[in-house]
Amino acid sequence: MRSPPISPAAGADEAQRRHSPLGAVLVTNGDVDHVAGLLTLREKQNFELYGTTGVLDVIASNPVFSVLDPACVERRPVEIGKPFEPVAGLEVEAFSVPGKVPLYLEKGDVDVGEEGEMTVGVRLTAHGRTAFYIPGCAAVTESLRERVRNADALLFDGTVFEDDEMPQAGVGAKTGRRMGHVPISGEGGSLDAFEGLGIGMRAYIHINNTNPILIDGSAERQAVEAAGWRVSHDGIEIAP
Amino acid sequence: MRSPPISPAAGADEAQRRHSPLGAVLVTNGDVDHVAGLLTLREKQNFELYGTTGVLDVIASNPVFSVLDPACVERRPVEIGKPFEPVAGLEVEAFSVPGKVPLYLEKGDVDVGEEGEMTVGVRLTAHGRTAFYIPGCAAVTESLRERVRNADALLFDGTVFEDDEMPQAGVGAKTGRRMGHVPISGEGGSLDAFEGLGIGMRAYIHINNTNPILIDGSAERQAVEAAGWRVSHDGIEIAP
Repeated sequence: MRSPPISPAAGADEAQRRHSPLGAVLVTNGDVDHVAGLLTLREKQNFELYGTTGVLDVIASNPVFSVLDPACVERRPVEIGKPFEPVAGLEVEAFSVPGKVPLYLEKGDVDVGEEGEMTVGVRLTAHGRTAFYIPGCAAVTESLRERVRNADALLFDGTVFEDDEMPQAGVGAKTGRRMGHVPISGEGGSLDAFEGLGIGMRAYIHINNTNPILIDGSAERQAVEAAGWRVSHDGIEIAP
Repeated sequence: MRSPPISPAAGADEAQRRHSPLGAVLVTNGDVDHVAGLLTLREKQNFELYGTTGVLDVIASNPVFSVLDPACVERRPVEIGKPFEPVAGLEVEAFSVPGKVPLYLEKGDVDVGEEGEMTVGVRLTAHGRTAFYIPGCAAVTESLRERVRNADALLFDGTVFEDDEMPQAGVGAKTGRRMGHVPISGEGGSLDAFEGLGIGMRAYIHINNTNPILIDGSAERQAVEAAGWRVSHDGIEIAP
């Protein structure tokens, strides 16, 4: 009842049999929704794990992540503002955006809006086209607007539609901004902030389950789509 | 475009709106496949987290788990051999089985087979009927056989069918026993070890993706079913 017979090449084959298309992982934030997925990656999967020193320190302070065998997963610190090439032909640059420390590291007063290593956005450039991935951002600053001007694609923090959406729904006391997420609507919201910047494709990502843009045909969904935004979903495809 | 209007009772409703049927969680092992799921439970979900001091210490040594708000999730140490009632009408008793420390805590020589707080099985008794849940076990000892004799149900470690299954398949160097999992087949395997003990329902759980019992109609599947075992799957229902 032996499955495959013992192959002398088994050892050599191991990397192949363990193979996935994944070559590198860049973690932009130390919060659970960004790092927990690392625990479900194959223990023996070879890939490089990129993150700012701040985020890699958060990961290093949790022994559970050493399940990613250091012999297979090299951790590589990323410097803010210094482009690198994790995979051939793809240039990546991390930049700071207003944010905060991860929820589970909050102590006392939390400085929401600080720009540092704990919350970053990334620029992805390949074949001369550029996309920005910014899953968490507490405010859209003028420098951020200039940075993404004329980008081919922008994937941006769509956590809440209204800043006080969670208190309204009775599922939490915190506003979007307190959680480090600028709301989509309202004054200073991302819907207005990224208008008229000549950005090709705009899509909301990182959408909380209280956000009505998730509901087909809701007024809020219609509002973001009318403004030219897509609402991302599992399996979304973004054509170059 | 406000979803529900602000309700004065929102605060009071919060627990309800956050409600899930989950009342208590018992973690029997500190390894990733046992504890990672805690990170996907709702941050504000009220439940009690039970585990041996050894396992709770592992969790406590990873700040990431404090995403389970201590105000909502009380951690309760479980004493080996001391029955408790996490929910009304359900008696639970943890007992040590041969095992090892979690993979990500292995250092140097690993004592596989030690009986302690790091790998436990549990007895679940309700309405006068008893089930045993033993997801990780490095060897079936005589005392374990006596413990489960005449149980109504046994859910047991089905990680590998053959001890050297992973080396054979070329996906790893470790045997089942080295990983802290007694194989199903062969001398000392669980298939023989639990035979003739008058156990009602027996089902293999915690099945590795190299284990051929996962394949419908495989010789190994037929062998375990012929011996009276079920192969568990997502959504399996166990009638009392």
